[in-house]
Amino acid sequence: MTARKLHCAVPVPSDIEIAQSVEALPITSIAESAGILPSELSPYGTTRAKVKLSILQRLEGSPNGKYVVVAGMSPTPLGEGKSTTTIGLAEALGAHLNRPCFACIRQPSQGPTFGIKGGAAGGGYSQVIPMEDFNLHGTGDIHAITAANNLLAAALDTRIFHERTQEDAPLYRRLTNELKDFTPIMQKRLHKLGIDKTDPKELTEEERVRFARLDVDPATISWRRVVDVNDRLLRDVEIGLGKAEKGVTRRTGFDIAVASEVMAILALVDDLADMRQRFGEIQVAKSKAGATVTAEDVGCAGAMTVLMKDTVEPTLMQTLEGTPVLVHAGPFGNIAHGNSSVVADRIALKLVGHDGFVLTEAGFGADMGCEKFFNIKCRTSGLKPDAAVLVATVRALKFHGGVEPKNAGTENLEALRAGMSNLLRHIRNIRKFGVPVVVALNQFTSDTAAELDLVRELATQEGGAADVVVTSHWSKGGAGAVDLAKALIKTTETTPSNFQLLYPSNVSLKEKIETVCREIYGAAGVEYLNDTEEKLADFEKSGYGDFPVCMAKTQYSFSHNPDLRGAPTGFTVPIRDIRVNCGARFVFPLLGDISTMPGLPTRPAYYNIDIDCETGKVVGLS
Amino acid sequence: MTARKLHCAVPVPSDIEIAQSVEALPITSIAESAGILPSELSPYGTTRAKVKLSILQRLEGSPNGKYVVVAGMSPTPLGEGKSTTTIGLAEALGAHLNRPCFACIRQPSQGPTFGIKGGAAGGGYSQVIPMEDFNLHGTGDIHAITAANNLLAAALDTRIFHERTQEDAPLYRRLTNELKDFTPIMQKRLHKLGIDKTDPKELTEEERVRFARLDVDPATISWRRVVDVNDRLLRDVEIGLGKAEKGVTRRTGFDIAVASEVMAILALVDDLADMRQRFGEIQVAKSKAGATVTAEDVGCAGAMTVLMKDTVEPTLMQTLEGTPVLVHAGPFGNIAHGNSSVVADRIALKLVGHDGFVLTEAGFGADMGCEKFFNIKCRTSGLKPDAAVLVATVRALKFHGGVEPKNAGTENLEALRAGMSNLLRHIRNIRKFGVPVVVALNQFTSDTAAELDLVRELATQEGGAADVVVTSHWSKGGAGAVDLAKALIKTTETTPSNFQLLYPSNVSLKEKIETVCREIYGAAGVEYLNDTEEKLADFEKSGYGDFPVCMAKTQYSFSHNPDLRGAPTGFTVPIRDIRVNCGARFVFPLLGDISTMPGLPTRPAYYNIDIDCETGKVVGLS
Repeated sequence: MTARKLHCAVPVPSDIEIAQSVEALPITSIAESAGILPSELSPYGTTRAKVKLSILQRLEGSPNGKYVVVAGMSPTPLGEGKSTTTIGLAEALGAHLNRPCFACIRQPSQGPTFGIKGGAAGGGYSQVIPMEDFNLHGTGDIHAITAANNLLAAALDTRIFHERTQEDAPLYRRLTNELKDFTPIMQKRLHKLGIDKTDPKELTEEERVRFARLDVDPATISWRRVVDVNDRLLRDVEIGLGKAEKGVTRRTGFDIAVASEVMAILALVDDLADMRQRFGEIQVAKSKAGATVTAEDVGCAGAMTVLMKDTVEPTLMQTLEGTPVLVHAGPFGNIAHGNSSVVADRIALKLVGHDGFVLTEAGFGADMGCEKFFNIKCRTSGLKPDAAVLVATVRALKFHGGVEPKNAGTENLEALRAGMSNLLRHIRNIRKFGVPVVVALNQFTSDTAAELDLVRELATQEGGAADVVVTSHWSKGGAGAVDLAKALIKTTETTPSNFQLLYPSNVSLKEKIETVCREIYGAAGVEYLNDTEEKLADFEKSGYGDFPVCMAKTQYSFSHNPDLRGAPTGFTVPIRDIRVNCGARFVFPLLGDISTMPGLPTRPAYYNIDIDCETGKVVGLS
Repeated sequence: MTARKLHCAVPVPSDIEIAQSVEALPITSIAESAGILPSELSPYGTTRAKVKLSILQRLEGSPNGKYVVVAGMSPTPLGEGKSTTTIGLAEALGAHLNRPCFACIRQPSQGPTFGIKGGAAGGGYSQVIPMEDFNLHGTGDIHAITAANNLLAAALDTRIFHERTQEDAPLYRRLTNELKDFTPIMQKRLHKLGIDKTDPKELTEEERVRFARLDVDPATISWRRVVDVNDRLLRDVEIGLGKAEKGVTRRTGFDIAVASEVMAILALVDDLADMRQRFGEIQVAKSKAGATVTAEDVGCAGAMTVLMKDTVEPTLMQTLEGTPVLVHAGPFGNIAHGNSSVVADRIALKLVGHDGFVLTEAGFGADMGCEKFFNIKCRTSGLKPDAAVLVATVRALKFHGGVEPKNAGTENLEALRAGMSNLLRHIRNIRKFGVPVVVALNQFTSDTAAELDLVRELATQEGGAADVVVTSHWSKGGAGAVDLAKALIKTTETTPSNFQLLYPSNVSLKEKIETVCREIYGAAGVEYLNDTEEKLADFEKSGYGDFPVCMAKTQYSFSHNPDLRGAPTGFTVPIRDIRVNCGARFVFPLLGDISTMPGLPTRPAYYNIDIDCETGKVVGLS
């Protein structure tokens, strides 16, 4: 593997200063070292390149490497460093221990980048570079998702408008290009309707109306528009208020783009054909007679695939030390499944081969992204994880034990012991899937030896973690995660994974929801609000009963209440709303007050972000 | 120059079949032939590359080539082939007559691509390839525009929300990070307010309130959100209807992304520093006390520039015959200025040098894109055009003479003579700017010799065109435009341009509007509806009186009424609304019923568009 020696400054400079102090290696060198052929690469500038899926055919016979998911304890305002650990550990394995290694991470959303959290390139001396390219547009995947999602929304609403404002005959005449032809996409709808005719003139009056009128019941529309901005004012909107819309108004809303079904599908598909199939299956509404209305019926599943055709290829980038990284799909493990893609993991597993490691990141706390990694992503891909790395810090554990952020730097063994309830539940949860857990404890200078010992003792003896390793990759790069890397290697050699799903596909949707709430969140029960029970019954009746569940919940607590730290028990989870993503093939319950569109704080990150007009460099991005 | 021989089939296959039948040359070869250094190129895949602006410094001392604007007669449903002519003529000059030549065209919007008009890569054997890459995401500029535009919208509305829901003290405390600091961007606002302090603790109560409260008057907000989709239901919306927004609702709307001020700025800037300056100057609203509220005040002009940093570089592509093309900025000469960028034209003019030609395209009829090319773009850049190519067809002229589309293939000299009024007014209009006009008459098989002769006679003798040339580049590639190329060369050699603006900057905004309406549109007068006169007075008072005007009007007629074909007279133009784009530095009057968000027809293009899952190729794109 290509490797670059780091010279780590003390004190550690800002993320962007570190990132800009190192010139990225040509992405073609990174690719060559990783075993990717030039013909399998589409460059985007000199530091990013998309990797063609044809590589999977070429490497079909190669053995897979070890498959490791990187997850976190319940996040706190202090920052635990999950992405940083993914990158640092990849550098330790790849650049220091000479193990073939890939990190598979997610393209950041511009919501957090300009909002509260900042970018997601890692931090300190464990970063993906160039961090500006990584944090801004990447290779355009999220933009393509936004375009495809919003094309379907516009197509659906405009179709409703045209159906409401046109009589049967002119509507049919215009759809069929003056009775001249059906396009191949229209023929799919005819086939679905059982109409076996190819000449528009041959349809009976009744068939013409059935073909031309989707007859959408506006109250059933589940498809929302998206933007990749934290735009809280768009959560609930009324559209169609213009005079020209002739009263075809509707209440709807916008989600953040990365939480869209289109993103979920991208992360789960096998290839472009699978994507085309799934886009066609997206359910956007029901007709007034109760029939399912899909993106295929609306006529733009093909165009959506065309817009998304390049996104199916993951993007190759590099860490500061020259370790290869595949960037694909999106974050938000709270309101999305929040995992990198199946195809990126598959490509990386083949490229690293028998002795290698693939680190794939799962969003937020392990109750969110990691549960979905197992129950949704691994269920879909059939891949079996070999180990999990669970990231924690002493400060964050004390926060979960009731300490306020400003006091998190003071030794407090009592609070730490209390807060360990959070980490222990995450460890036990992952072990329920049969996967061994190595805890990565990101060290801060304020951590005391007694505190680190306590975490080690409780995590291994009470939690059953395979190992607990203190790391310093934020300040030292891969060198600071070599012990963690060695512990991970040893664990995969000595502790075999017995991976199993938490629930089978063939139990009821309610049972799936309740299993996750009880077994993962520690809830006492589940309460179905509004019309969620009717919706679940309808989903079962419509044939979606086999889908897994993708829970939308606050990331800050095991419960639906962000203020309940540690490992709360005895709470009842309210299911406020529930949607079905027929293309992504999961059911999507919304728990408590979780919103699918974040907001901007009073002082967002953009107050720091600018261009230095002399140098053209970005400043203030973190 | 690199050139590729075409083998033109008869009958002419579909656009996408032709485009996919030719393998694009490596963009590095196109660049090399055009004189672009490898270090001045950022590849996007193998067929597109962004060109760095540093090339302008390197070529500072080189002479400019001839600067030619390609414009059209008033468009009709029949299609006249303006983009096709731009490409065919570039091929004739570059690949057939060995003149250094660049076509400077605009990135298409996905609105028309999936709506009515289809893509904008040209057509037949005169196309930009790969047409899928050109017509879909390009190198992501429009997506970056959408992101920057919508970040500002979210920032503004969320700021209003925070100001409405927070008391003075906590608002100030949060903005200043607990009284710890002002970011450099905040210091710009302090400077504007005349507060010469750097420590948040030092401000007086009154200064704190002035700094923290933009105190926006919601009724004055002129900044709208954008999407690059024809989504008519978003023209007028109400936002903030969610319970969490605490009643901070507002009536607003979405425009198509390419009509945004951010796009207009991209097309007019000199460089990134100029872009940063102009983004800061964008006026989004007024305060309740009547003060201007800018993007700088909102705090995200820096972040917008960061999002847009790569867009400032035009994208190099190629024609079917290997002639270089620079793609930059966006279309919609009706509701935007609709011209390619100043920087793309400047780069191309230096690259082709003394003997070369740069063809730059101006959107829709010459009354729209070309008037704005002269009065806005050339005013900004200081560049002087040498000639104009005006594209027409016999069929379209007969349509303007009252013939219905289905009869446009039948000889009708009377209708043709009547419809020539349209072309003649366009010729005379361009000549008012002192620029010689060559008419390109795109031939159809139904055109008769008598018809072609009549156009030639009237255009030269009555209109004063320098030449009229019949072309067949749609079916023959560059070979079909060689006569046109020769005529253009001859015109630039024999008929010097005496370029002049239609109005000086220092007359009143009303006089500018009325000059364009009278001199270009042939209107009898102008009527100011709603509060447009007050707005104009306010713009003058606020110091925007020197701006040119960017008229938004239907492209289908010289008048504001799309049904008035030919060269209507005696009409009064209603100014329905008027906006000011302080960053783009023009005033933006909306004439008649023109909408800044197009709609989808009953049978949009997407019904034809799909992926062939066997080959991965796009089908049905046109």
